[in-house]
Amino acid sequence: MEKKIDQVRIGIIGLGARAETLLESIFILAERGEVAVTAICDLREERIEKLLGIFEKRNAPRPAIYRNYHELIASPNINVVLVPTSWNSHLRIACEAMRMNKYAGIEVGGAASIEELWQLVHASESTGVSCMMLENCCYGRDELMVMNMVRQGLFGELIYCECGYEHDLGDEIARGWNKNIERGLHNMHRNGDLYPTHGLGPIAKILRINRGNRFLTLSSHATKSRGFSMAMERYAKSPGMVFNEGDVVTTIIHCANGENITLTHSISLPRPYSRNCRVQGTKGIWLENAKGIYVEGSSPRYEEIDVAGNPYLVHKWDKVESFHDKYDHPIWRGYRNNVIGGHDGMDLLVLEAFFDAVRRQTAPPIDIYDCAAWMSVTCLSEQSIAMGGMPVAFPDFTNGKWISRPPEEPSRWSLNEVYEECFIHKR
Amino acid sequence: MEKKIDQVRIGIIGLGARAETLLESIFILAERGEVAVTAICDLREERIEKLLGIFEKRNAPRPAIYRNYHELIASPNINVVLVPTSWNSHLRIACEAMRMNKYAGIEVGGAASIEELWQLVHASESTGVSCMMLENCCYGRDELMVMNMVRQGLFGELIYCECGYEHDLGDEIARGWNKNIERGLHNMHRNGDLYPTHGLGPIAKILRINRGNRFLTLSSHATKSRGFSMAMERYAKSPGMVFNEGDVVTTIIHCANGENITLTHSISLPRPYSRNCRVQGTKGIWLENAKGIYVEGSSPRYEEIDVAGNPYLVHKWDKVESFHDKYDHPIWRGYRNNVIGGHDGMDLLVLEAFFDAVRRQTAPPIDIYDCAAWMSVTCLSEQSIAMGGMPVAFPDFTNGKWISRPPEEPSRWSLNEVYEECFIHKR
Repeated sequence: MEKKIDQVRIGIIGLGARAETLLESIFILAERGEVAVTAICDLREERIEKLLGIFEKRNAPRPAIYRNYHELIASPNINVVLVPTSWNSHLRIACEAMRMNKYAGIEVGGAASIEELWQLVHASESTGVSCMMLENCCYGRDELMVMNMVRQGLFGELIYCECGYEHDLGDEIARGWNKNIERGLHNMHRNGDLYPTHGLGPIAKILRINRGNRFLTLSSHATKSRGFSMAMERYAKSPGMVFNEGDVVTTIIHCANGENITLTHSISLPRPYSRNCRVQGTKGIWLENAKGIYVEGSSPRYEEIDVAGNPYLVHKWDKVESFHDKYDHPIWRGYRNNVIGGHDGMDLLVLEAFFDAVRRQTAPPIDIYDCAAWMSVTCLSEQSIAMGGMPVAFPDFTNGKWISRPPEEPSRWSLNEVYEECFIHKR
Repeated sequence: MEKKIDQVRIGIIGLGARAETLLESIFILAERGEVAVTAICDLREERIEKLLGIFEKRNAPRPAIYRNYHELIASPNINVVLVPTSWNSHLRIACEAMRMNKYAGIEVGGAASIEELWQLVHASESTGVSCMMLENCCYGRDELMVMNMVRQGLFGELIYCECGYEHDLGDEIARGWNKNIERGLHNMHRNGDLYPTHGLGPIAKILRINRGNRFLTLSSHATKSRGFSMAMERYAKSPGMVFNEGDVVTTIIHCANGENITLTHSISLPRPYSRNCRVQGTKGIWLENAKGIYVEGSSPRYEEIDVAGNPYLVHKWDKVESFHDKYDHPIWRGYRNNVIGGHDGMDLLVLEAFFDAVRRQTAPPIDIYDCAAWMSVTCLSEQSIAMGGMPVAFPDFTNGKWISRPPEEPSRWSLNEVYEECFIHKR
């Protein structure tokens, strides 16, 4: 498809730590002459100074400086906006960018209300421009490989998935309490899955959510809360602080095609990091925590004999890595020997996908319906937990279009491209 | 404690495959002169003949034969009854045994109604004798080791657990459809967690359920059902059969002390076996599928630097086996170099524990309150699924005694023995 924008001129609003890591990946793309950061904006001078330091170190042209994000969005100097601001502000800013006819890239996070998600949908539908969530985990190597295997039919019909964000951030939140208080404040005041998309994004793509499938209901459950208080006492010498967020929040999502997803959020207990992925169909399963894939017909399966002489079947995992060579997603095939940029290379891939959609002025691979569905989990899970685990319904942000929305058009960056005939036509 | 019964004389009711594997372990104990099977009962002659064949092969004294289980229970020839009969009959038979002043050992499985569990409780409370569920997984090496570590405080305060029964039995059910139809029929007609106790039993013990803690509510969720129909078509050449049981059933249980348990049942999809255990506290976690344990302060934890130069923490699993030497439960210390009998040695241990309670005529380590709480998950999960995942309440089968019931008295077989001061006294 033809390019409609030749030069991607980026304005970044919100210059915290995430802006710094994004900038590292953007500089790699800028070296290829594909993009340039031409404006930056923050309320805090020290953040502006720190980011300018990175430009200087790279000998990059100095961007225009804004303190008022409305002015940055209105500036003819930029044609796309990156919004790594707080969870409570990025949707509002993205809506304003779309209304000014500029694509917005927002960071991950959950919504505070269903209403702010409808506003996002309306802003895009009424202007024809779009907003992409820069959910880098959608470009994770194993997530993409398993999607590839699923589309080729190796897992059969999908039945059940798990995912999550399990990352011990208690100490980080406690040590940075005065500096970087936003995440801590959300965990102090709210109780729900506050950070659903690292796990749920890739799984939603694999399940074709919003294209022949959709989230119907969820039911959420929180444990007691201990980890944050303990971390605050240990590191910040602030005993007796009370947090509302349960240490482990478990959410079950029912999908229209009969699959369930179990989603876990846990950031306050000591443990190794995991996105807790499980993708299971009638013929195969990937289980991240076991580092294993089992595919019927090819993975090890044999009979053993019990003490009473009766036979029973044994199944064994194949190692995930053993599938990379054959089944890596096309996006990763050319990339795997040259992984660069932050977060195991995922940052670079998600930014390239976004800038590609901007250039072509087409729908990005993670669009406003994806944003709305995924981010709604946060406020819906709060409601369910507050009502003792009662199921609550997802709005249909597509207003029925999910039934007949086709897979994305094939492109280098597609996350929904068909390898088999689309599932909705096979039923 | 003194022995009140010197010779354990066992009557076995129900001579299917489970009776055969139990018998193998009982013969090991019989060689030590501790127990004897003196009566057996079944409606089917071929099963009686098959079991007698095992006695002959072992040169064991021929037991009395019954076709009517009421007569076996009434016989003075036995003083304890093992009931490896069907899920729909073992509770009724166990109640009758208790009313005849004889201990009953039932096999695992779930309840059809709350009422049949109240009958079990009343039968024991009114007679003073007891019934033990022979939940062999409560004597699994890793389950017991982790309980030991928890009691010693290594995991801190418990927050969250997972468990389950994930075992590809589709082919077995299909191939044995005409021979061994009961399990298949339950999966054809019901939709719930039909087999909760292999996973939940050990976890309930670790969480001190019924002794300072209890199950409050559950919420259950079933996927669509595909695996059984496919297996029936593949192996039994019976296409078009419809099963109600979802391929993956997920249940979240809320406990009185603020912990949640996520329980999974899945027996119709191809995958390696797992009981899916996770035990997580404020200081440590065991994750069966990762074959790992992480304990704060001793497991690997170090800082790395991201692309923007900012530090972040990395945690790594220790291997589960690396804890065996130091933390094996006392029950396993003497046993680990001489594991014998079925199911990795667990069958022998659970039978020894039961016969020990019979000899002493004391409460067994898995008693009627445990049976009732664990087995109620099945019928409650059916109710919740039928209502779209609505939370439903557990009855308190102890009628309030759970608040002040002490840990079991210390014994060789205790599953609740205190290594630290009892949790209920620490709050």
